[in-house]
Amino acid sequence: MNRDSLKWLLVSTLKGISQVILIENAISGFIILAAITIASVSLGVVTLLSAVIGTLIGKIGGASAESVNQGLYGYNSVLTGMALSLFLSGDDRFLIALVGAAIASVFTAAMAHFMRKSQSEIPVLTFPFIVLTWFLLLTTYRLVSFKISPNLTPQSLSNWTLNIKGETDWLDGAVNGIGQIFFLDNNFSGVLLFIAVFWAGWRLGVYAIVGNAAALLTSYGLGGEHHLIFMGLYGYNAILTIIAVAIVFKETARYPLLTGIIAACLTVPITGSVVTWLLPYGLPALTMPFVLCTWVFLAARKIMPRI
Amino acid sequence: MNRDSLKWLLVSTLKGISQVILIENAISGFIILAAITIASVSLGVVTLLSAVIGTLIGKIGGASAESVNQGLYGYNSVLTGMALSLFLSGDDRFLIALVGAAIASVFTAAMAHFMRKSQSEIPVLTFPFIVLTWFLLLTTYRLVSFKISPNLTPQSLSNWTLNIKGETDWLDGAVNGIGQIFFLDNNFSGVLLFIAVFWAGWRLGVYAIVGNAAALLTSYGLGGEHHLIFMGLYGYNAILTIIAVAIVFKETARYPLLTGIIAACLTVPITGSVVTWLLPYGLPALTMPFVLCTWVFLAARKIMPRI
Amino acid sequence: MNRDSLKWLLVSTLKGISQVILIENAISGFIILAAITIASVSLGVVTLLSAVIGTLIGKIGGASAESVNQGLYGYNSVLTGMALSLFLSGDDRFLIALVGAAIASVFTAAMAHFMRKSQSEIPVLTFPFIVLTWFLLLTTYRLVSFKISPNLTPQSLSNWTLNIKGETDWLDGAVNGIGQIFFLDNNFSGVLLFIAVFWAGWRLGVYAIVGNAAALLTSYGLGGEHHLIFMGLYGYNAILTIIAVAIVFKETARYPLLTGIIAACLTVPITGSVVTWLLPYGLPALTMPFVLCTWVFLAARKIMPRI
Repeated sequence: MNRDSLKWLLVSTLKGISQVILIENAISGFIILAAITIASVSLGVVTLLSAVIGTLIGKIGGASAESVNQGLYGYNSVLTGMALSLFLSGDDRFLIALVGAAIASVFTAAMAHFMRKSQSEIPVLTFPFIVLTWFLLLTTYRLVSFKISPNLTPQSLSNWTLNIKGETDWLDGAVNGIGQIFFLDNNFSGVLLFIAVFWAGWRLGVYAIVGNAAALLTSYGLGGEHHLIFMGLYGYNAILTIIAVAIVFKETARYPLLTGIIAACLTVPITGSVVTWLLPYGLPALTMPFVLCTWVFLAARKIMPRI
Repeated sequence: MNRDSLKWLLVSTLKGISQVILIENAISGFIILAAITIASVSLGVVTLLSAVIGTLIGKIGGASAESVNQGLYGYNSVLTGMALSLFLSGDDRFLIALVGAAIASVFTAAMAHFMRKSQSEIPVLTFPFIVLTWFLLLTTYRLVSFKISPNLTPQSLSNWTLNIKGETDWLDGAVNGIGQIFFLDNNFSGVLLFIAVFWAGWRLGVYAIVGNAAALLTSYGLGGEHHLIFMGLYGYNAILTIIAVAIVFKETARYPLLTGIIAACLTVPITGSVVTWLLPYGLPALTMPFVLCTWVFLAARKIMPRI
Repeated sequence: MNRDSLKWLLVSTLKGISQVILIENAISGFIILAAITIASVSLGVVTLLSAVIGTLIGKIGGASAESVNQGLYGYNSVLTGMALSLFLSGDDRFLIALVGAAIASVFTAAMAHFMRKSQSEIPVLTFPFIVLTWFLLLTTYRLVSFKISPNLTPQSLSNWTLNIKGETDWLDGAVNGIGQIFFLDNNFSGVLLFIAVFWAGWRLGVYAIVGNAAALLTSYGLGGEHHLIFMGLYGYNAILTIIAVAIVFKETARYPLLTGIIAACLTVPITGSVVTWLLPYGLPALTMPFVLCTWVFLAARKIMPRI
């Protein structure tokens, strides 16, 4: 492997990491990697290796050079590797996480094919990561070498009672939303992630703050659990959604910021329902609310070009 | 707003109400609105406002004038508004219902995009209403301002026992099926709804009666719960299905009535399974059996043109 | 009906039976029918009648002669008829099985339409059989004339404990995998099924053995339940997957056997998760793991042509 190949791999890998928040920027990717590594060195290593694996599979498999270079085969692998290493327990979890990262890359290609051929012009987003992670977490109930983290407990909906009490900490809420995109609830990492986003463009950073604020207010106003709100669990989907709807795929929209804020607010009830839907299986919602709300608004925009 | 705009809005709105039963006819829409208002004035107001909201969002969003004028952005909003105001409780439910009606219109456009671009030539039907309503009802378990009606109770399938006993009342069964399309079980409203359908065309009315009869006999013959059968809960999907399969989208079919009756009968077991599938979540089946059976027959007809 | 029609019907029907394992060969179909009939005469009759019904509906409905002759409207009917007659109990189950076989043919056409029009060039596989069978099994909780087999019991995931102990019988494992494709766990039938596959091509037979071995080792290595492993319940999806990925739809692949083995191994964790997902409903996984893994690899291959 010569120097050029190494450089190419490094840049594509870092772009893969930044694509998790819909950004194609190697420096942002590097700052994100630093934010993750500061929170946990082993998580940082998993992130880097997952991005490398995803990118290499795209390259070796023969995907178009452009898409591989943009990091489009990296971000689902990054998220899958991180999620599996966090939501599984036991010694095998790092190996499973890296195999999962490899499969995520193949699954991303599969979804891209379905989306491309149907001419929907709708991006795959993080759908492959979400579905693959759910599947591999459910496997724990049948194969002993997959051990689920004790935090994920299936529960019958008929036994569920909602208790929203808990401290309100708006400062935590302000930085934890962006952290949760990468499964982090460390304030310093949250600040670093904002720097990564601002580096890629001031508008991205401002919109991320607006989206997070919209979700905080909506979830607080509608009466969500304070504990979850201020850990950022209602915010991360809103941040991704406003960036997707109001900036990255804004196209013909007349008032993209307004539509983006509405879409960000909508992620709050949708998060509530995805979490409820998954309760009997004890699975985390991941970024499904972001994917659903973004797909609805992007597809609707093809028919209603002004929204 | 001038007089022409008002007239346009009124006609499109009423057509939106009639599109719930696949009819584009403002007078029928008006009779349906009357049937609903007689059963409950507040429900009538929700219906009208939801149809107006859906239609206006289609217009403002820039959807094609033709589709907006046909009421195609109204019917999912009507159903979503009605369902949310009925299946939620508490004071906020009317506000939530109208916001839901607005989202339903956007979601309808999104689905229309996926269907159009995939060139499937398959209509969206009431899929957006169903999925959106399910999502917003599940939200009640996580956000206190969404309060679910006490009638909707999640239940574990392992604790379920089937008891089909109950009175048989064929007269109730004859009119309640069409009523349930609009969540009504009032006989007089049922008769008015039949008048609305016959107004749009005698064939529509006759087929609705045939579809309902097919479902009554099938569900009784296969041993469904009498209570549900005669409340019309096995009939409303059959009525919509026969109208869709045998009249509205009949195309190349050689024996459309026969295929329509078969499809109507099939909605009975499919209703049974959708209800079972939703039992752990306590959600209503809504018109999902109609959507599934109609999609299968309409799509199959593209490959098997004679059915 | 003249002699030519009868011969056509016989050949298309037998091809329909062989299409269950992605083979178009009337002799193989005949051997498979024999393997089933040896295990159970009534099951053999259901198999034959279901294949006839599916094929005739394709013909009468006006599907393209080529697809009907290849048996493409038979295999989903065969599997649906067999599954319903095995997983239901009571006297009506044979009638329900044959009606189910008829609907399966229509559903296959519907899915083929969606796949064709979206230009995905991805085959329908056994998806219609799986979904239809699940739906009709769930119906048993609502209609008394549908009686579910006592083996299928819904169970809450929170009460589930995994116990992998049990005898290891590698010989049983070697032949039961292929048997389970047709719901058989009879060694002699398993051997006959291998003969049917080898008759259609030695490569098909060898790959089936390789795929089964890969699944046995993977499921044993990852710690699956021995009882299920050696009954072939982790093997049958792997066999179908390796045949689909490495032979039937191999196209541009550079190392089809390697990719096929990876896909076959992947069916093991996916089987674990599909089974877990269905646990609250007491439904069997059927060939869903095969369909999911094959779709992912075939669709990914359109974007990554070398895999």
